[in-house]
Amino acid sequence: MNDPQPLYGAEGVGFMDGEYAPLASLRIPVTDMGFQLADMCYDAVHVWKGRFFRLDDHLDRFLASLDKRRYETLGHDRDAIAEICHGCVARLGLADAFVMLIATRGTPVTEKKDLRTCPNRLIAWATPYHAIVSDEELEQGCDIIVADTIRIPSGAVDPTVKNFGRLDFVGALFEAYERNADYAVLLDADGCITEGRGWNIFALRGGRLLSPESGVLEGITRKTVLELCAELNIEGRLARITAEELRGADEVFLSSTAGGVIPVKSIDGKAVGDGAPGPVTQRLTELYWKLHEDPELSTPVNGL
Amino acid sequence: MNDPQPLYGAEGVGFMDGEYAPLASLRIPVTDMGFQLADMCYDAVHVWKGRFFRLDDHLDRFLASLDKRRYETLGHDRDAIAEICHGCVARLGLADAFVMLIATRGTPVTEKKDLRTCPNRLIAWATPYHAIVSDEELEQGCDIIVADTIRIPSGAVDPTVKNFGRLDFVGALFEAYERNADYAVLLDADGCITEGRGWNIFALRGGRLLSPESGVLEGITRKTVLELCAELNIEGRLARITAEELRGADEVFLSSTAGGVIPVKSIDGKAVGDGAPGPVTQRLTELYWKLHEDPELSTPVNGL
Repeated sequence: MNDPQPLYGAEGVGFMDGEYAPLASLRIPVTDMGFQLADMCYDAVHVWKGRFFRLDDHLDRFLASLDKRRYETLGHDRDAIAEICHGCVARLGLADAFVMLIATRGTPVTEKKDLRTCPNRLIAWATPYHAIVSDEELEQGCDIIVADTIRIPSGAVDPTVKNFGRLDFVGALFEAYERNADYAVLLDADGCITEGRGWNIFALRGGRLLSPESGVLEGITRKTVLELCAELNIEGRLARITAEELRGADEVFLSSTAGGVIPVKSIDGKAVGDGAPGPVTQRLTELYWKLHEDPELSTPVNGL
Repeated sequence: MNDPQPLYGAEGVGFMDGEYAPLASLRIPVTDMGFQLADMCYDAVHVWKGRFFRLDDHLDRFLASLDKRRYETLGHDRDAIAEICHGCVARLGLADAFVMLIATRGTPVTEKKDLRTCPNRLIAWATPYHAIVSDEELEQGCDIIVADTIRIPSGAVDPTVKNFGRLDFVGALFEAYERNADYAVLLDADGCITEGRGWNIFALRGGRLLSPESGVLEGITRKTVLELCAELNIEGRLARITAEELRGADEVFLSSTAGGVIPVKSIDGKAVGDGAPGPVTQRLTELYWKLHEDPELSTPVNGL
């Protein structure tokens, strides 16, 4: 009753069960296995100056996730899903927006909860564009920790299928809060870094830009950054990176559809480089946003 | 529109946001981190002949989970939670029932989705009593497989806090479906057996009854079975059990609040023992249900 009014979701426009509705009114049945088993997958795409950025890449990945998770009764094909993305943003009426696309297993028909009996469900929504960090952190860098909680391994859950089964991130975030940081990167069982909630990570070491090669989401911003390395004439590649190698890097940044290139200014309380965003991070940030002007990589929102 | 009517949930009575309502109408906001991060915990308790079985043990475990997950703004204390369990069953009006108790993180107040800003949410519901297997499987035994998908390790997510972040179980279940079984047990990274969706597992070997000692939920039916071993004059204890040891066991059964002692008649298509429930499994089943008459272990439902 006297709960603070949530800012998150207050302005969104969603789509579910065939209808558009305010995000704040979207609710899923508690009997949906998307809730009871985290049996779902999702993708997130952003709109900048009225255009989707790399929409085809996001749709490719979302459709690959549907396939891997065997959601065969969603009732919306690729074109229909794209249309819903356009429909949510057009109704939101903002040129800078963030779109979530979610598929859930659905509610089982039998009490035995046989997953093959569930009619799958599509949910989508658009919100005003926002980064996973504050504006100040986007400018000056954010503080992260290396968590003791390890990332769920690929042998248990495929990290390339973006999903909400994220209790490892929850544990790691509370570790961060206790150590005066708001973000955490998780290690795998071998002590190599993986990713955090909603982002991949990069480390610049000896002029080479590295990002973890396994146990992580194949991020589209990650892919974009790796492509941009060619323009900067630096080597960018995937590799195994230990926590020590991360801590000793010259520059560190996160990559996310929700924020782009996000500088990291400290790890475990110790400054990265001189504690300010480094030159490669800054140059990649400029190139990343400039790339949004490339018509080959963007799609105008219909009806906006 | 033409979706088959779900049986699951059709008859339940729930409680959420301060009100009782039909289970089929219970929906959680998509902005609740209980959905977006599987940031939730739950417990399940059953009612038999009008009495809760081991309600205090379930409440102890649920409250321990709330504490571990730091849900501090739930707004319902132990007595209130117990009252809601009674309220759901009384409104369902059945002497044999199954009760779910769920806490979710809630919807964050800030767009950064700081988990500390979320007002936690309590959800509960009662449904007619049902086992996780069919009546025929309860009698004659069920077929399980040992999955290739591994269980999420304790270092990533604490398995003693019952939760819905179960994509490992989802992967394992689809392996089972492909191999003509409906249930799967998962191994840990060392090749030792852990548990399946909603159950612990037991293996009788050389007269000793063993159940996995780590990486699993500390099941209340598991605890009950271990206590009953004393009455049968057999040694019952927790141990490391390899897949080979499981396959070579004389008897195998599952334990769950939703079904009690559930015989396993085959593993990976090969019969366990002579393919019928063994004498120890049968005797434990009898003792388990007889124990429900013990007033020390049960609580009458108010208003039923």
